[in-house]
Amino acid sequence: MNLISLTTDFGYRDWFVGTMKGVIHSILPQAQIVDISHGIPSGDIRAGALALMASYRYFPRHTIHVGVVDPGVGSNRHGIAVRTEDYSFIGPDNGLFWLALADEKIVEVRRLENRMYFLDPVSATFHGRDIFAPVAAHLSRGVKFSELGPVESELVQLEIPVPVVEVGLIKGEIFYIDQFGNAVTNITLAHLGDIDPKEVTVHLAKHKPLRLGRYYQEAGPGKPIGLIGSAGFLEIAVNGASAADKLHLNIGDPVMLR
Amino acid sequence: MNLISLTTDFGYRDWFVGTMKGVIHSILPQAQIVDISHGIPSGDIRAGALALMASYRYFPRHTIHVGVVDPGVGSNRHGIAVRTEDYSFIGPDNGLFWLALADEKIVEVRRLENRMYFLDPVSATFHGRDIFAPVAAHLSRGVKFSELGPVESELVQLEIPVPVVEVGLIKGEIFYIDQFGNAVTNITLAHLGDIDPKEVTVHLAKHKPLRLGRYYQEAGPGKPIGLIGSAGFLEIAVNGASAADKLHLNIGDPVMLR
Amino acid sequence: MNLISLTTDFGYRDWFVGTMKGVIHSILPQAQIVDISHGIPSGDIRAGALALMASYRYFPRHTIHVGVVDPGVGSNRHGIAVRTEDYSFIGPDNGLFWLALADEKIVEVRRLENRMYFLDPVSATFHGRDIFAPVAAHLSRGVKFSELGPVESELVQLEIPVPVVEVGLIKGEIFYIDQFGNAVTNITLAHLGDIDPKEVTVHLAKHKPLRLGRYYQEAGPGKPIGLIGSAGFLEIAVNGASAADKLHLNIGDPVMLR
Repeated sequence: MNLISLTTDFGYRDWFVGTMKGVIHSILPQAQIVDISHGIPSGDIRAGALALMASYRYFPRHTIHVGVVDPGVGSNRHGIAVRTEDYSFIGPDNGLFWLALADEKIVEVRRLENRMYFLDPVSATFHGRDIFAPVAAHLSRGVKFSELGPVESELVQLEIPVPVVEVGLIKGEIFYIDQFGNAVTNITLAHLGDIDPKEVTVHLAKHKPLRLGRYYQEAGPGKPIGLIGSAGFLEIAVNGASAADKLHLNIGDPVMLR
Repeated sequence: MNLISLTTDFGYRDWFVGTMKGVIHSILPQAQIVDISHGIPSGDIRAGALALMASYRYFPRHTIHVGVVDPGVGSNRHGIAVRTEDYSFIGPDNGLFWLALADEKIVEVRRLENRMYFLDPVSATFHGRDIFAPVAAHLSRGVKFSELGPVESELVQLEIPVPVVEVGLIKGEIFYIDQFGNAVTNITLAHLGDIDPKEVTVHLAKHKPLRLGRYYQEAGPGKPIGLIGSAGFLEIAVNGASAADKLHLNIGDPVMLR
Repeated sequence: MNLISLTTDFGYRDWFVGTMKGVIHSILPQAQIVDISHGIPSGDIRAGALALMASYRYFPRHTIHVGVVDPGVGSNRHGIAVRTEDYSFIGPDNGLFWLALADEKIVEVRRLENRMYFLDPVSATFHGRDIFAPVAAHLSRGVKFSELGPVESELVQLEIPVPVVEVGLIKGEIFYIDQFGNAVTNITLAHLGDIDPKEVTVHLAKHKPLRLGRYYQEAGPGKPIGLIGSAGFLEIAVNGASAADKLHLNIGDPVMLR
């Protein structure tokens, strides 16, 4: 019996997430379910992909990660199950698992077509309840991956901006704004290579350059700082306040490292 | 030991829901608890009733559904436990379970009066913690329904608007707006009877008629569509956006099917 | 194996809470985790302290309460584990547990320094994931308190406003606004002493005096009332609406009892 994690954009007002859990427990009464987040912005596949990428590896081996950010539900997009050496991922084939899979060794991908593991009937608008939850529960019970459907040869890719690295310069952009208003960029420590973080400055349009620090309170109260956040990305923060609000930062804004 | 589900308007900022869970685990350490939603709008019994109706049947048989949307807490409204052939429902007798019970065969209704299964003392403002959670935990442990209090002969009814069906015309209204901005109406597939959904048009005040489709992306990006949602109700959606925002829809607005 | 509760300001949009749970389950697969709240306002240690104080005692004996409202993460503030006769508390030493500990008999306090129970590496910005979650999981597995680090002799105190009690008069202030808009003050039943609550009036600036009632619907619809809330504090409520909105109440506003 494997842990099941859930990541969706279903929010916290409606009955959608609870219904998925009811379905899982109906198939596997003793299931263990952990919420990663249900607050992914509606239909924002990229934000969902980031949440999964930042968290999946902290779960026990063989955890089944279910992701449902699925604006194309009911259309001809496929449902998929991806097995890597350490985890499984179940959800729509729309790029949601792309970032997490980048660091994983993929063993097997199946298209979800075996209706024996779906609810009956299957609605056209809630595959989280009718397909992904029951498939996850059956997998957790021990159903074989190969039972789920035919091999899927290619996954839909996530379109993401990639930083441009030049001599002495990395050009990236803001990728995500978190709960605290920290502005997460697409620049990682790997992009820095051999460069000493202490010699780096962070450049935002219309703001003075920031130094790269280690934690929030290194900056004075209300002052901005750049740092490598806990998911490995360069982020812009303000000590004790929202950097997004205070510095008027938005997703897509350019960020440069010198 | 039966699963316990929780549906409340306690939100996610305060300690109310966590406290109920602490109480349940204090009585039954190995309890299994699943959240349906705690984001029901404050005091909105109808929204809570809809959430319970749309989800309760997806849970394992014998699940104990606890609902607390309880603006009359501490007044002379009763607490009740309702047992149907497949489920139990525990909470205030204010109509919260009315929609779910419409499809269930009621076996027994008890008024919660046996203080042996309450916390001591009982506050006047938090029966979720002091009455409903402990009663659910005791039931899950195996306490008999008949121990909870005297038989309650009649349940408080939920006032809900019912669609008017005429020849070639169904007049309903918007009943709920979900997390995605989909406007859920009180019209169900059953109201359509023998009519072919493909021949139906959906009429909103001040908007062009919509066709009835199956899934969101059948409409062009940013375009509206009518469809039967996953809970069985006609809903008005916009592909990739909030229909409520885009079409200025509100609860109570009339919707007609021709 | 002891229950683990979580109280944080991590919110519900990001992957932070789910990641902590993944870490706990990785160390202790069958862990039982209960959320108290993750909606504590960002960096609001006092609100976190109130949530913990109002809820911790409703959990089973030996529950491990993890609290992470931690604006000083990565700075020189310590992580601590506090053991009382009935519970354990794990988190930053910044006053977060001060209100809960006021009613507890402290047995032992340890500074979290034994890196054997941390993740490796430890980030500078997410000790919830890298220190507090794994320490809680190890404690729940049976690791001894004395293994966690050296004895900590003194805890950081929480600065809180204390009501002034004079003859026939108690001067307090608004301390917290809950989900329903109820304004919770720092005045408790204990401050009233022998005074009969029925003879007390509640005074707010620019409003008529309120009487002290027992439950919300004792006031007419839309009318204000004072009452002792479920956590033991005097609160100002409005029947069926938000007192904070309707009476323009803010944290820090003075409240007097006569």
